[in-house]
Amino acid sequence: MADTLAVWCNLRLTETALVALREGLGSHRLRRAVELSTCMQPLGRHDPGLTTADIAFGQPEADQCAASARMRWIHLASAGYTTFAGDDVRARLIGRGIPLTNSSSVYDEPCAQHVLACMLAEARQLPRSFRDQATAHAWNTPPTREASFLLKGQTVLLVGFGAIARRLAELLAPFGLRVVGFRRHPRGDEPVETHAIAELHVWLPRADWVIDILPAASDTARFFDGSRFAAMKPGAIFINIGRGGTVNQEALLAALPVHLRAAYLDVTTPEPLPPEHALWSQPNCFITPHVAGGHGDESERLVELFLANLRRFLRNEPLAGRVY
Amino acid sequence: MADTLAVWCNLRLTETALVALREGLGSHRLRRAVELSTCMQPLGRHDPGLTTADIAFGQPEADQCAASARMRWIHLASAGYTTFAGDDVRARLIGRGIPLTNSSSVYDEPCAQHVLACMLAEARQLPRSFRDQATAHAWNTPPTREASFLLKGQTVLLVGFGAIARRLAELLAPFGLRVVGFRRHPRGDEPVETHAIAELHVWLPRADWVIDILPAASDTARFFDGSRFAAMKPGAIFINIGRGGTVNQEALLAALPVHLRAAYLDVTTPEPLPPEHALWSQPNCFITPHVAGGHGDESERLVELFLANLRRFLRNEPLAGRVY
Repeated sequence: MADTLAVWCNLRLTETALVALREGLGSHRLRRAVELSTCMQPLGRHDPGLTTADIAFGQPEADQCAASARMRWIHLASAGYTTFAGDDVRARLIGRGIPLTNSSSVYDEPCAQHVLACMLAEARQLPRSFRDQATAHAWNTPPTREASFLLKGQTVLLVGFGAIARRLAELLAPFGLRVVGFRRHPRGDEPVETHAIAELHVWLPRADWVIDILPAASDTARFFDGSRFAAMKPGAIFINIGRGGTVNQEALLAALPVHLRAAYLDVTTPEPLPPEHALWSQPNCFITPHVAGGHGDESERLVELFLANLRRFLRNEPLAGRVY
Repeated sequence: MADTLAVWCNLRLTETALVALREGLGSHRLRRAVELSTCMQPLGRHDPGLTTADIAFGQPEADQCAASARMRWIHLASAGYTTFAGDDVRARLIGRGIPLTNSSSVYDEPCAQHVLACMLAEARQLPRSFRDQATAHAWNTPPTREASFLLKGQTVLLVGFGAIARRLAELLAPFGLRVVGFRRHPRGDEPVETHAIAELHVWLPRADWVIDILPAASDTARFFDGSRFAAMKPGAIFINIGRGGTVNQEALLAALPVHLRAAYLDVTTPEPLPPEHALWSQPNCFITPHVAGGHGDESERLVELFLANLRRFLRNEPLAGRVY
């Protein structure tokens, strides 16, 4: 593979990361496209630069990749790969031997930390104290202490058991919760008790926390619906860092005032969530703007991962983060 | 010890905890006094019931305890014991063989979780997102992601290394930070690298986080002063769950806009912090109203601990949580 490759990239990178990328590419050519931040979906526009690239790094259009005669490898800057999950695109890329890799290892750690941040914020009632500070400079000790609670002995369900859940289970280990994982097909090598997702209904009434880490897919669309929220224990807390589409938001809005203690949502439908949306004003719903995977040195870590994979690609070695 | 003991208690307890206390006391008499929530200091009023009690459980006046001819044991409902730390009171109680015990084991866990909650809230920028939600329903993805960061590789100083710091070190273990403890006299049995507090100045410029877990004492008064804040690394984060009096608040107010990234304060001087105090309005200062040790079943756990100690007391066994 001594030829010069054209590497297409549409990521909004820091200056440091861009310098590292150029240096790491050596004699290969970098082709910059309209920049997107890492958590954004591709723009859906035809990009001539992508058609004549050998490698795509970032958030390329799935159909355009599948239609490109020259494409040899696609490395996504996200953990999610919704637009590449469809049967048609998948079959075309696999048929032509074009590997798809993702950057999930860049996001496992911040996503796991984000979930624990939300759990501890609720347990320590931080949103209440911050609101009391912002509104009235109010020092409300007794009600805040009474509403606080310890995690020990509680049950948390990790719905969608991949790398994020695995890391989260490690972070949760010292707290003494019961951690139960759910995935389509448990493999038996999970570090915590894990069941088939079809068994979830048995567990929802027993759990204090339900963590949605589901990817977008045909069988996860609006997965958390009215019946699943109703099945949860009264006072359960729902956290979503998976995808907004995995939740029936009308059902969540109905459950929040009467049945759930709180919801922490990092993903919504649509994104951005429009200012007039009712979720923003629900007092026990706490929204973060799709930032669970974000961190200041995200650009640098993405470039580092891509360049390490590029070295493997050039040596015909197995790629890291292989989706298919 | 077959005689009937008079047990004085001034704690505001839940109904469940009060029932458990009465049951656990059996034939001994419970003498209720003006109720205080667990984190409040005693009222400073003479309480005739205390003078004729054999055992004090709650937040009694130190001088009155020392003056009581009948007192045999004092069990504090707090971890702190400021008013009992003075040389005079201490000498009088020790001289008469009156043991002082505290309830620190009830508070280690919530306090450690509270510190980690604040650290993760800052790392995941939760206060920013909650503020964006409360004010403008604003979905500010890129700046929030960029301001977020991972804990891995950072350095955290635990200033005041007792039971809370020990537990916090366990909770922090999976994150890959460098954890360094400081106490008056390191014993060598600490689970993390621990130095004499006199060495702190060497470490302040290297730390990303400085956690104040100091008790109130003559040598900790206004310990964190202008020179110590100035010695901290630019962008360091200061968290105080120790005592408000360990901080020079004017110096903190001066450091916050120019030198520190943020402060999280669970304790202040005075408490409650008056609504007009400048700390409330400092945009990177986050205040919780002395709740770090609080949790919904605090009453039950305090009573449980006291009753277990009472059984030891009645059997002349060593008491748990012995201060002196």
